[in-house]
Amino acid sequence: MNNHYRLKMSCPDQVGIVSQISQFIANNQGSITEANHHTDLENKWFFMRHEISAKSLPFGMEEFKQKFTPLAESLNIDWSITDSAVKNKVVLMCSKQSHCIADILNQWHSGDLDCDITCVISNHRDFETLVQWYNIPFYYVPVGEDKSEHFEKVTEIIEQHEAETIVLARYMQILPTEVCDKFHHQIINIHHSFLPSFIGAKPYHQAYNRGVKLIGATCHYVTKDLDEGPIIEQDVARVSHRMTTTDMVRLGKDVEKRVLSNGLRMHLEGRVIVHNNKTMILD
Amino acid sequence: MNNHYRLKMSCPDQVGIVSQISQFIANNQGSITEANHHTDLENKWFFMRHEISAKSLPFGMEEFKQKFTPLAESLNIDWSITDSAVKNKVVLMCSKQSHCIADILNQWHSGDLDCDITCVISNHRDFETLVQWYNIPFYYVPVGEDKSEHFEKVTEIIEQHEAETIVLARYMQILPTEVCDKFHHQIINIHHSFLPSFIGAKPYHQAYNRGVKLIGATCHYVTKDLDEGPIIEQDVARVSHRMTTTDMVRLGKDVEKRVLSNGLRMHLEGRVIVHNNKTMILD
Amino acid sequence: MNNHYRLKMSCPDQVGIVSQISQFIANNQGSITEANHHTDLENKWFFMRHEISAKSLPFGMEEFKQKFTPLAESLNIDWSITDSAVKNKVVLMCSKQSHCIADILNQWHSGDLDCDITCVISNHRDFETLVQWYNIPFYYVPVGEDKSEHFEKVTEIIEQHEAETIVLARYMQILPTEVCDKFHHQIINIHHSFLPSFIGAKPYHQAYNRGVKLIGATCHYVTKDLDEGPIIEQDVARVSHRMTTTDMVRLGKDVEKRVLSNGLRMHLEGRVIVHNNKTMILD
Amino acid sequence: MNNHYRLKMSCPDQVGIVSQISQFIANNQGSITEANHHTDLENKWFFMRHEISAKSLPFGMEEFKQKFTPLAESLNIDWSITDSAVKNKVVLMCSKQSHCIADILNQWHSGDLDCDITCVISNHRDFETLVQWYNIPFYYVPVGEDKSEHFEKVTEIIEQHEAETIVLARYMQILPTEVCDKFHHQIINIHHSFLPSFIGAKPYHQAYNRGVKLIGATCHYVTKDLDEGPIIEQDVARVSHRMTTTDMVRLGKDVEKRVLSNGLRMHLEGRVIVHNNKTMILD
Repeated sequence: MNNHYRLKMSCPDQVGIVSQISQFIANNQGSITEANHHTDLENKWFFMRHEISAKSLPFGMEEFKQKFTPLAESLNIDWSITDSAVKNKVVLMCSKQSHCIADILNQWHSGDLDCDITCVISNHRDFETLVQWYNIPFYYVPVGEDKSEHFEKVTEIIEQHEAETIVLARYMQILPTEVCDKFHHQIINIHHSFLPSFIGAKPYHQAYNRGVKLIGATCHYVTKDLDEGPIIEQDVARVSHRMTTTDMVRLGKDVEKRVLSNGLRMHLEGRVIVHNNKTMILD
Repeated sequence: MNNHYRLKMSCPDQVGIVSQISQFIANNQGSITEANHHTDLENKWFFMRHEISAKSLPFGMEEFKQKFTPLAESLNIDWSITDSAVKNKVVLMCSKQSHCIADILNQWHSGDLDCDITCVISNHRDFETLVQWYNIPFYYVPVGEDKSEHFEKVTEIIEQHEAETIVLARYMQILPTEVCDKFHHQIINIHHSFLPSFIGAKPYHQAYNRGVKLIGATCHYVTKDLDEGPIIEQDVARVSHRMTTTDMVRLGKDVEKRVLSNGLRMHLEGRVIVHNNKTMILD
Repeated sequence: MNNHYRLKMSCPDQVGIVSQISQFIANNQGSITEANHHTDLENKWFFMRHEISAKSLPFGMEEFKQKFTPLAESLNIDWSITDSAVKNKVVLMCSKQSHCIADILNQWHSGDLDCDITCVISNHRDFETLVQWYNIPFYYVPVGEDKSEHFEKVTEIIEQHEAETIVLARYMQILPTEVCDKFHHQIINIHHSFLPSFIGAKPYHQAYNRGVKLIGATCHYVTKDLDEGPIIEQDVARVSHRMTTTDMVRLGKDVEKRVLSNGLRMHLEGRVIVHNNKTMILD
Repeated sequence: MNNHYRLKMSCPDQVGIVSQISQFIANNQGSITEANHHTDLENKWFFMRHEISAKSLPFGMEEFKQKFTPLAESLNIDWSITDSAVKNKVVLMCSKQSHCIADILNQWHSGDLDCDITCVISNHRDFETLVQWYNIPFYYVPVGEDKSEHFEKVTEIIEQHEAETIVLARYMQILPTEVCDKFHHQIINIHHSFLPSFIGAKPYHQAYNRGVKLIGATCHYVTKDLDEGPIIEQDVARVSHRMTTTDMVRLGKDVEKRVLSNGLRMHLEGRVIVHNNKTMILD
């Protein structure tokens, strides 16, 4: 097998971190195939991500964790390690718009998104059979008068599938605080504006009315503060004066699906480290 | 109905063209909702596209054509008119890669590509059931020893469906000259490089070896000279030194599908005029 | 001479506007070298811009205006016409940062910005001799305790030079309402953020703190509501997690100077029509 | 002083490189403020760049070099180290177009390009006084019948100024092979196309004739094979059907100056490693 471990970490900056970490890896014959460090000099914080060839090590991931823990503790490191051979379990949530979910499903099916899509949850049945074409379980969970019922059911399904990542692929409901907190930095949303512009509803209409020359989309982790979570990825597209809001909505879909799948890919590859409500993308 | 006629034309430049055309339209109470002119001063050639509200005219398209013909002849105009209410008949052709065809199908299904996808033709069965999910006929036409059999069958299907547009959505076969000629400026291809760079096979490998910092894709009309037809749309994406050819192929898919669907949309809206092997995009 | 007249106009939409305008031009043998229309169907408003070869007309601009006025009045048109042979008179205002002013001066000197830079006004002497190298008068107008004195002096200089356009090339003072009103839609500012994000002071610091993945700049007409005027042009650049605010300020300069000179060019070519605090760019 | 050493290196890949390097740095109390590694798995080659706080080390750069040499030799490393406090000596060469040189001079003057511009050499006098405004020596070296005289004089000036970097800022002469070889990977050129498209003369005219939808520029090291050297940076801009070649030349200038200054900045910061005629940009 040609898999690798992705070790990502952040800690207060001090001399010798890189040395101690890489010495630890080298002492165990670990072959580093990709490495990325960053020191935030202003906040004196250190960020690092390593890809280590699994077969170069004399032991598996559990033993790696055991051996690494004392070093991590001595340097006060916040860290995690994942194995590229073990696919991240993802739940997709959508509503009535298909551009994001269709794009993710196609990329996954083509082998371009390395994860395990365990199920799709939606408050509408529109894409039930499409999802089933991909042999993925589809859960129809309508939103009734009492929204809390909906979210209890959603949470139950997420837990039942042991999902590590929840993707809101234009799922149009605002999550309650307890769900945001329960899956901290595990829920990825796509917002259809270039945040922090046009927070809230109907951002393309807001953009049209302000007369901006570019529209955008933002992929971010969901926190209890709506549209305020750490930004993972953003991009824009140019609009012309000819465009109606309908045209902008259409053009925006291209940006949204691209930004969401790129942000999700960074997340799945363990490249995203959150610090102070901001992300470091170690790519 | 809220449909409109799209009148596109080109002719040798001279004084008074706009006046005569717009007078003709106004005399018939035509309401112009979008207009775009361009004069190529170097080649003394004139290009124009009008959208005219159909309901503002006292007659239908056939009578429009009859009445307009004498004027067009007197000005030596090469013109065509289409009705936004009559969908362009499109045949999709693909092979084993799904990113382009899946994107076009999803956009069409979402109402974002205004056309009639009459069928999909492929030399592989991979997407047969996906296409069927969209209720679109799928024709499996394998490529054998004698390629001419394949192309005869393909031509037959295209003609049977009275297709006006043929989209090569990463269909990996080179069309014979007679097919190119038969469907002149009706066949749209996506080439996975920023033409004229990296003509021919394995463009991402060529790009990798040359060390370019951006990769691209090109949507163009197919002519008998491979990769030399009129370019409709192009775009690029930034690559980093970390990227292998595999990474570039993946990133390129995003560019390809965006460029192909945008180029196709311009074609379907009657915005593309070809002159001297170049396109004017009147948007 | 190869000059042309630029006729721009907007009016309530109705049938026959294009016809009447182009008939008027054709009846006077006017040769239209570029034309651009746009109908805002939602607001039922019509926008048009023509470039007419001056030598094709049997009379000059004054007679054109006289002859055109009755037609314009009958259609309730808000219009203006400029002669490409008569350069727009521009005043540049700057402070201590040179990237925008140096870029504009170089483009003007290279013949790439078609205008007459009548003078530069600054509250600092830093670029006095550089401006003089270009043979352009430089006015040092310091800002004292009483800012109104500064603005009186500035207004006097602008009027003395009969400036039609005032460019705030990173001029760091907020204009008083009376100056904004006096030079309505004549003052062009560059704001160092992608508006409406990060209004006000230190936008790059705001951007850094929010963790956005792109920074931008906005060229807009100045109105009495700070950073709320009609947007002429915007663009963005990608930032990485490595960038400090200092890096972002540096990168932002590239975006600012590009956006300002492009917005100014559109303005100078008479391509910008303002309606409802938004611009139509008829290019 | 807040300076840092930039250590860049490449070598055949093997286990333990990172560990040995970082152990060496840590054993000497070196504080790494930025690090970037890359392993080219296909070619089994390793690339690394470190920024080390100078004041964290107990010795200066010469002693660093002495101590590091044995390790470098044992790992077969091709390496160099520069001190951010010692400015790279740059010679600019230009001809009759000012957009690149004016932009570089302004960025340098504003403190945004960290180097020492030792002189400007040109075969025309157009920018002599502008260069002098910046207090930089200007050498007028005309090109006569015998071009070799020109290049002998140019080489002499470069050597006299001990230049480490030569920037061809739209200098329109082809360098002889001996000059290319003498200053190997020290000469940076800007080519006004998106290479490998439109090699050679008049690339914008080639682009216009081919009908591409984007034009570009390429910053590359000069080698004896014209336009074939390692690419440092590229970018593009969108063109419309309205653009004449004159418009494309103008738009291209914006791309050229941006690409050249960005490529030069990467070079000056010691981020460019050349391998197999390609660059790794360790940013």
